[in-house]
Amino acid sequence: MSKHNKIVVVGGCAGGASTAARIRRLDEFAEITIFEKGPYVSYSNCGIPFYLSGQVASSENLLLMTPENFDQQYNIQAKVNHEVVEIDRKNKTVKVLNHETGESFQESYDYLILAPGARALKPQSIQGVDSDHVFTIKTVPDVRKLADYLSDHDVKDVAVVGAGFIGLEVLDNLHQLGLNLSLIEAADQVLTPIDEDLAQILHRSLYDHGIKLYLGHNVQKIESDAVVLESGASIPAQAVVLALGVAPNSDLASQAGLAISETGHIVTNHHYQTTDPYIYAVGDAIEINDYLTGKPRTLALAGPAQWQARAAADHIYGRTVQNKGVQGSLSIKLLNYNVASTGYNEKFLQAEGIPYDFAYIIPKDRVGLMPGSKNLFFKLLFAKPSGKILGAQAISEGDAVKRVDVVATAIRAGFDLEDLKNLELTYSPHFGTAKDPVNHAALVGLNILNGEFKKVPVTAVRKLVEEGAFIIDAREEDEYELSHLKGAKNIPLSQFRQRLDEIPHDQPVYIHCRSSQRSYNMVRALEQRGYSNVYNIDGSYLGLSEYEYYRDQVTGRKSILTAYNFD
Amino acid sequence: MSKHNKIVVVGGCAGGASTAARIRRLDEFAEITIFEKGPYVSYSNCGIPFYLSGQVASSENLLLMTPENFDQQYNIQAKVNHEVVEIDRKNKTVKVLNHETGESFQESYDYLILAPGARALKPQSIQGVDSDHVFTIKTVPDVRKLADYLSDHDVKDVAVVGAGFIGLEVLDNLHQLGLNLSLIEAADQVLTPIDEDLAQILHRSLYDHGIKLYLGHNVQKIESDAVVLESGASIPAQAVVLALGVAPNSDLASQAGLAISETGHIVTNHHYQTTDPYIYAVGDAIEINDYLTGKPRTLALAGPAQWQARAAADHIYGRTVQNKGVQGSLSIKLLNYNVASTGYNEKFLQAEGIPYDFAYIIPKDRVGLMPGSKNLFFKLLFAKPSGKILGAQAISEGDAVKRVDVVATAIRAGFDLEDLKNLELTYSPHFGTAKDPVNHAALVGLNILNGEFKKVPVTAVRKLVEEGAFIIDAREEDEYELSHLKGAKNIPLSQFRQRLDEIPHDQPVYIHCRSSQRSYNMVRALEQRGYSNVYNIDGSYLGLSEYEYYRDQVTGRKSILTAYNFD
Repeated sequence: MSKHNKIVVVGGCAGGASTAARIRRLDEFAEITIFEKGPYVSYSNCGIPFYLSGQVASSENLLLMTPENFDQQYNIQAKVNHEVVEIDRKNKTVKVLNHETGESFQESYDYLILAPGARALKPQSIQGVDSDHVFTIKTVPDVRKLADYLSDHDVKDVAVVGAGFIGLEVLDNLHQLGLNLSLIEAADQVLTPIDEDLAQILHRSLYDHGIKLYLGHNVQKIESDAVVLESGASIPAQAVVLALGVAPNSDLASQAGLAISETGHIVTNHHYQTTDPYIYAVGDAIEINDYLTGKPRTLALAGPAQWQARAAADHIYGRTVQNKGVQGSLSIKLLNYNVASTGYNEKFLQAEGIPYDFAYIIPKDRVGLMPGSKNLFFKLLFAKPSGKILGAQAISEGDAVKRVDVVATAIRAGFDLEDLKNLELTYSPHFGTAKDPVNHAALVGLNILNGEFKKVPVTAVRKLVEEGAFIIDAREEDEYELSHLKGAKNIPLSQFRQRLDEIPHDQPVYIHCRSSQRSYNMVRALEQRGYSNVYNIDGSYLGLSEYEYYRDQVTGRKSILTAYNFD
Repeated sequence: MSKHNKIVVVGGCAGGASTAARIRRLDEFAEITIFEKGPYVSYSNCGIPFYLSGQVASSENLLLMTPENFDQQYNIQAKVNHEVVEIDRKNKTVKVLNHETGESFQESYDYLILAPGARALKPQSIQGVDSDHVFTIKTVPDVRKLADYLSDHDVKDVAVVGAGFIGLEVLDNLHQLGLNLSLIEAADQVLTPIDEDLAQILHRSLYDHGIKLYLGHNVQKIESDAVVLESGASIPAQAVVLALGVAPNSDLASQAGLAISETGHIVTNHHYQTTDPYIYAVGDAIEINDYLTGKPRTLALAGPAQWQARAAADHIYGRTVQNKGVQGSLSIKLLNYNVASTGYNEKFLQAEGIPYDFAYIIPKDRVGLMPGSKNLFFKLLFAKPSGKILGAQAISEGDAVKRVDVVATAIRAGFDLEDLKNLELTYSPHFGTAKDPVNHAALVGLNILNGEFKKVPVTAVRKLVEEGAFIIDAREEDEYELSHLKGAKNIPLSQFRQRLDEIPHDQPVYIHCRSSQRSYNMVRALEQRGYSNVYNIDGSYLGLSEYEYYRDQVTGRKSILTAYNFD
């Protein structure tokens, strides 16, 4: 290059800072300037909620780089409190407002990188939303403000509004402070990437940890010491955290005439170029594409922002980039549970009209006789009839994340159930089982796909019990005594061949045990013995008790179980 | 089928028991008999070492199933203390010796499953190997014998001979009992699936935990209170555990005229049939094939035994099975470390003549500012010039296993570095980093593959220091002061652009920092500034200090570092 590139980056957080650093590695001589309207560059967005509990000891720790670091290490000029307020595409300049001096100036660019991010939603339809005791958690100043408020005021009750990612992480961290917490969510479950059946496990955990959960509720107004729901209920709260999602900061791009999607996100092409080839956009403000369907979607996660940054920088320097879209992989710690998911859940697949089925297994996360082994609730979704892997969800007090990362990889590989069954994963009794839960779920999935047995999900069992269906509990008598489905007949796997005359041929037979291993064996045997209408109950006793518990508690409805036992 | 199949299984541990159970699910009416020469069926082989420390509280816990369970739940006859001593292939019968009565009888079969397993090696060339205080750890009675001996005798010093899987697990569990331990290994490192550079990290850990390590040593004789090495050294030991590997129990198959490999393993085809189509063989006694090279190999691990069992059963019942060979995935907990590997290491690739390179990175296992974050030593091997993923090794006090499972999946997918770079894995600050170590290693690998920078491994640095090479330490001054490579010049990344005149053009320049992030940036900048001979030191300070420490301690050689600092 005869002349050195002049690069201007709008936004100094993950996407912007990463693009700038990558450009420096590609071009030691480029002139690179980052304008950040806030007071900090390159902070750990994802670490912000953990400052509340003190897990991140100081808010200084959230700051990964300072303008001085950028200058000294990367020869990058990072200007904080500088807002780019206008783009002149024709002359390739931006107008920058220095918030410290109030002065504006023009800056020219060869390439402009937009990484403006997103802002937390604060719906003005909620009365009182702008009060001093109402907080959002998006930036370092945001979290400091809440933390300071909590230490300066006599706050006993906090309401968190929104049970997505950020809401739950905030909740988890506030819980560690011993506050009385309420969680309000418009949907009928927390963490919508997780299907409703598994989400009940999280509801139980929230309930058992004393967190008051308001599902299917909208906030009408926020008063000085309470949140009032549209239902009229008043929830005590001397501080309120809004975690209702984010909106893209796309006004600057829009004013410059760049294409904006219906959802207000900046439109980019395969190389993260906007509709102006000299302007790239990365991070939470852009629209991306779904890996499976190819349809536009948005996903405000840090991982994808990292690739986008690298890809944009690479493309400026003539490198080929791949942009296969996003599948949505995530993990979160919530109270006692580790939770992860990747790919597509039932709600998504139903909405898209994609035929699917799933295996739901509850093995131990490691060899059961090892200390610390925990139940792993694991759901594997696959396409019908191809068996192609579509998604996975896992919840465990032990290791849930690892298995979802394996499935995330399998999805990218276009694997089907047979491929997943044959995976050779690492094994030690400390970390897993010889037949890894991923292999195990694939085997169950293959059995479903091949029609080797029929099944009903845990979500269908209440109705079966109420209708007086013939349900066999295949556990041993002592297990049955502790707790069982009302009306279920106890015929242990160890006795059924001698008690076949108790099992009717003229009606459907539903079988469960503790985690479906014994019931599956009985289902297979009965099918071969001429029973044509036998169903395994997916998830079995463990899955059922988790599924039913929370709503039994909060609605006071009649339980279909004689007692609860979660071991 | 007009007549029900009669199945005889030889061996009641993992492979045999799993085959029998799978056959029952496929055929409710098959007549299935397991003959096990020992006193137990279906015990947890892999859990055995953990009984020593009490992590597995009772040896009863190791027994997963009893003959009664098999009968009641599966309608399978499991006969313990029954040894199959002869196969009459012509008449399709076996001769069985009942060790309790001393009587023999004939049993007919339609299909015979051989799952005889392997036995621990006890080389008779070692004098004293049959003494009462010398133990192997292969079966439940084995481990009980050692545990009883330790509690009944005044044992202060135990020598473990063999630093493979079993040796290290035994060592880890004995360490928890507070015994003085010595570990003797003929190779120059422990755990040979791990490359020598990373193995030094384990050597340091063993050393720091007070375990005396004798690498490159063979045992000459075992005395009543000492092990004498071929070097003449005498190591105090009132009890000795031999963990020298296993030999397949293939005599029965051999006597029946079935094909046996050069290594003494039973030869099977794609469906785990032996050279007699009515006889299948599974588990540790068979020869299998390598996933990458297709060459015969052996692998005594539980995961593959599980598939083989299922595949053999499926094939008997006319189902198509896949048998893609094994890649060798493993994990182990050793003292403070979690260790995992999959695929092919340097030694293997060199022996096979397969061109390769590797990325060695040392990121944190999760976001660095989160409590509990730990260094992750991660090595990713790939083919040159294709970039195809060949293997991975990981060591961490935190989460090492997850990343290796992802690479194990990627290997099965035939992924290259570009695929791995683009993986979308789950992320939460609790469990990982936005740029996952797997993505990160792939990026470094791509940079290597694309010739974007040159590198030298940690294994080459001692020579460079001794030769007085020009080495730049790119860390800040305070880090340099604590400890640095002797002779290295401290030019922090934050200062180098002002100090270019201190960097010579006429000789190679080697750069490191703490974990290679800063040095990589400096390497890239210097290359663009006209330096043609700049090398990044792989693994940087962290990798170097781990690599050098143990041998500095045991050999008393002159260290190339001014001090050691492992944070």
